[in-house]
Amino acid sequence: MRLYTIRHNGEEKVAVRNEHGMVMLDSVDIRVSDMNELIRRYDELSDLIRTRMETADDVLKDGRYEILAPVPVPLQDIICLGVNYKEHIEETVNILDFTKKKDAVYFSKRVNRANDPDGVIPVYDFVDSLDHEVELGVILKKDAIDVSVEDAGEYILGYTIINDVSARNLQFKHQQWYRGKSLDGYTPMGPCIVTSDEIGDPHDLAIRCFINDEMRQDSNTSLMITTVEEAISELSQGMTLKAGTIIATGTPGGVCMGMKDPVFLKGGDIVRCEIEGIGQLVNRCGSV
Amino acid sequence: MRLYTIRHNGEEKVAVRNEHGMVMLDSVDIRVSDMNELIRRYDELSDLIRTRMETADDVLKDGRYEILAPVPVPLQDIICLGVNYKEHIEETVNILDFTKKKDAVYFSKRVNRANDPDGVIPVYDFVDSLDHEVELGVILKKDAIDVSVEDAGEYILGYTIINDVSARNLQFKHQQWYRGKSLDGYTPMGPCIVTSDEIGDPHDLAIRCFINDEMRQDSNTSLMITTVEEAISELSQGMTLKAGTIIATGTPGGVCMGMKDPVFLKGGDIVRCEIEGIGQLVNRCGSV
Repeated sequence: MRLYTIRHNGEEKVAVRNEHGMVMLDSVDIRVSDMNELIRRYDELSDLIRTRMETADDVLKDGRYEILAPVPVPLQDIICLGVNYKEHIEETVNILDFTKKKDAVYFSKRVNRANDPDGVIPVYDFVDSLDHEVELGVILKKDAIDVSVEDAGEYILGYTIINDVSARNLQFKHQQWYRGKSLDGYTPMGPCIVTSDEIGDPHDLAIRCFINDEMRQDSNTSLMITTVEEAISELSQGMTLKAGTIIATGTPGGVCMGMKDPVFLKGGDIVRCEIEGIGQLVNRCGSV
Repeated sequence: MRLYTIRHNGEEKVAVRNEHGMVMLDSVDIRVSDMNELIRRYDELSDLIRTRMETADDVLKDGRYEILAPVPVPLQDIICLGVNYKEHIEETVNILDFTKKKDAVYFSKRVNRANDPDGVIPVYDFVDSLDHEVELGVILKKDAIDVSVEDAGEYILGYTIINDVSARNLQFKHQQWYRGKSLDGYTPMGPCIVTSDEIGDPHDLAIRCFINDEMRQDSNTSLMITTVEEAISELSQGMTLKAGTIIATGTPGGVCMGMKDPVFLKGGDIVRCEIEGIGQLVNRCGSV
């Protein structure tokens, strides 16, 4: 299933897209206040949604709605993995010295409101090194505590695309990465959540990022070092991952910071992030 | 004003303590669902609360309620300052190499539920270096964006005590500190929020921590490097600090990690954190 948050007649609504088009849950008499409620109740509602979708006749025409970030207001900070693709370690070796890395790097990103799949990435005047990071995002549907790697899949609702936009000067100035990752507008997300059953193997997806149509990141989620299931298992040891938790699983090589003579993002640049089977984010960098 | 969350007849209630005792807002006909609502509406309600408290006759007797963390479920991860007291830098110099530190270190701490002022700090079998950090906590009452140092005080509701409990092995294993700070039960908080008008100068408060009655941390908030107002101002540049944001302002010297031959916390140890004008947290370390 492909789950969306859309704006329709000025209101934010949860919707599902099938082969006929976009259908609001409201219009098939399934009431949820927002995506966070659907996430929490997904196992209870999924069969009903499937059945009602088969006969849904109130399909929204393109242009009658806008697609927003699927989880516009995450319940908690997003948990991120750092340097979790093999080539990304190599390109950042001179900056981060993770040559000996074996353990996962976990940090968090405050997301007051996720940026839309076509939203503007703000260019702040105190950021001189704006960078992109296309990442596979994982959304949990049940509270997870002390979960094994083998059982971790049962807690996953589905997957989305996250651009972990980063202000490199702030990320390193403050030693811990939190502030450089957490500025308003720095988390484009979407265009939808694709549920686990539909995505297949999450470690066999092409993942790419283009700047102004030039391919910069081109990898596959098979190259992750810590897998999705390993991350859920490790993070859940002693820390309850509540339903609605979002984990961004790290970015492959090709970010601006990794260039020999880095050229960072500037106003007017178009960042396009793609993951196979999910879709794309297309965000322009613009002044605020 | 001294704002509490208490449990009374099995229910969580917001209460205020004055010279007569503890008074639930319910009992003076002021309805808020929880402390997060009172935080957001404080400027609107504070005069009314003061007036009603003068004539309140429904004072709860001691023993008829339990004191919980004042903000049991923070709206977002808590933002923390690292190494923000002069002596703490000196004691950790061999471990953290912050000798050249000038800029504030910001990281975050997931708090699914804050631990109570007398709650048990969990001793996990995969943590071999459990440590304490007494810190002044700051609670914001209004959304703050691009705020100057001079104006930052207007956004502060008040202050509490936070013990930023840390698993040092996890904190350093994962390079970023997030996971080692975020385990369930690792954020004792309380016993109350003391509003700004009552606390006076937040940079003139004795701050101490005792382990089994032995004084380990003994400092004053005047020794902070980045002040409360400077932290709010800097963090709010480009990142909206929403009403309800909690900032832990760093710990003074005296943590276990800083000892010449570190002895970390173990089951049965009693950790007592005190800040002048606020009160104390008394938490036993115990098995889970």
